[in-house]
Amino acid sequence: MFSHEVHLRVCYADTDQMGYVYYGNYGRFYEIARMEALRSLGFSYKELEAAGTMMPVYENKSRYLRPARYDDLLTVKVVLRQPPAVRIVFEYEVYNEGRTLLNTGETTLVFVNRKSGRPGGAPAELIRMLQPFFAAREIPG
Amino acid sequence: MFSHEVHLRVCYADTDQMGYVYYGNYGRFYEIARMEALRSLGFSYKELEAAGTMMPVYENKSRYLRPARYDDLLTVKVVLRQPPAVRIVFEYEVYNEGRTLLNTGETTLVFVNRKSGRPGGAPAELIRMLQPFFAAREIPG
Amino acid sequence: MFSHEVHLRVCYADTDQMGYVYYGNYGRFYEIARMEALRSLGFSYKELEAAGTMMPVYENKSRYLRPARYDDLLTVKVVLRQPPAVRIVFEYEVYNEGRTLLNTGETTLVFVNRKSGRPGGAPAELIRMLQPFFAAREIPG
Amino acid sequence: MFSHEVHLRVCYADTDQMGYVYYGNYGRFYEIARMEALRSLGFSYKELEAAGTMMPVYENKSRYLRPARYDDLLTVKVVLRQPPAVRIVFEYEVYNEGRTLLNTGETTLVFVNRKSGRPGGAPAELIRMLQPFFAAREIPG
Repeated sequence: MFSHEVHLRVCYADTDQMGYVYYGNYGRFYEIARMEALRSLGFSYKELEAAGTMMPVYENKSRYLRPARYDDLLTVKVVLRQPPAVRIVFEYEVYNEGRTLLNTGETTLVFVNRKSGRPGGAPAELIRMLQPFFAAREIPG
Repeated sequence: MFSHEVHLRVCYADTDQMGYVYYGNYGRFYEIARMEALRSLGFSYKELEAAGTMMPVYENKSRYLRPARYDDLLTVKVVLRQPPAVRIVFEYEVYNEGRTLLNTGETTLVFVNRKSGRPGGAPAELIRMLQPFFAAREIPG
Repeated sequence: MFSHEVHLRVCYADTDQMGYVYYGNYGRFYEIARMEALRSLGFSYKELEAAGTMMPVYENKSRYLRPARYDDLLTVKVVLRQPPAVRIVFEYEVYNEGRTLLNTGETTLVFVNRKSGRPGGAPAELIRMLQPFFAAREIPG
Repeated sequence: MFSHEVHLRVCYADTDQMGYVYYGNYGRFYEIARMEALRSLGFSYKELEAAGTMMPVYENKSRYLRPARYDDLLTVKVVLRQPPAVRIVFEYEVYNEGRTLLNTGETTLVFVNRKSGRPGGAPAELIRMLQPFFAAREIPG
């Protein structure tokens, strides 16, 4: 298992007239969390794209347990339970400063060749970087 | 069953550098589709809120089958398979002009009293408006 | 002078916790207005880009006179006072249903060659399409 | 004069299909910069709102000199040249990591009583906090 945490301040742009973070804006929070998680390993998504592979989202799920509000300093915990293969699945938990769980989510991304548009599987470099976090006997799902 | 279709033009603001509609922006498309669906029945969410009930999102799921692209004229079909009760569940199918299915989604919203913050169930007016679409003998899936 | 009007419904995604349309979201409204204005002439920005020219924004100004609110059906009037040359300048007026002026804005865009990144001036086709709206004797303001 | 700098990483959500940060998204960058600037003084906009004053945007201007791109680590420098009175005017300069100036902007906000909707002038606490940055002999414009 690999996990990472990022901290994000809710700004006015994130809120809606309910005074909640608009439900569609969690996609941005998740994106930042998973990209910073990969960056913490030394992996650059920007370089991956420059080298010809992109990672479009295939599936996204969110559960909104309690509202996040303006000025909340959120912690987004992102977890990889399986090493990436054809897909990579990130799970999230979003907490406020009082460590109340506000939101859970899951995003599945695929690896696609930019030119052909065809799925290609996780790049070797990413698999290698994540290997230490997944014990030898774990069987990828 | 109740269903409704809206048409939305993808603008630059919706796209990301992949040339796709950013995955987080479908929340907006779904919102417009379900609100216009209710409006087509004569139901105003704005009035519902003014009368003290709001409808926060509890759960949202999206599957991204094919990219929506800049200038695509999308059709968002929204379906209610069950009459609203404590929750209301909207399902979506997003098509491009060639009627290719690009995206499917599902949003569950709850009815909450604005002052108390407590769940209250669907308003009688909405239940009444939707009644004709749900025949007595329909068996809930 | 060339002008065009579009109608846009304010959705929840547009609002912030003040109950106003977030100031940054007018950029989207302006974009839709100017692109639909060009479309009404038979001009496709998508085709322009495909042919190698893009139109990045050089300058944008907005004045927020009164708030736009959730569910408002806005009219965005867009005006071209001068034929496009190296730049094209769109002016906007945003009204609510009661025809109260809520917002004024102005966007200056340039024409850039996608490959070289260099400014190239308005495409001949666009100049030709707009010519009938700018009489020979009009004196530039 | 009072100035402050914040650092922001451009994410996918910020970009458009040109591979640039969408012009409308600078409003969010400016908001974060000015709110963090006030926070650095010990001033909380959240508390100001809770106490009955809100700060809607009256005017916003942006000039886009060079594109900001995905993964850029931006520096947003925000400057107050005058102490706040009926209005407060923030100026911005946005730089990339190579310290190239990408964007300049200016936002004018007003102080409004939440209940009456009437302008009220800057709160005494904010004026007091900013006083040390404006020498006695400076003449407000």
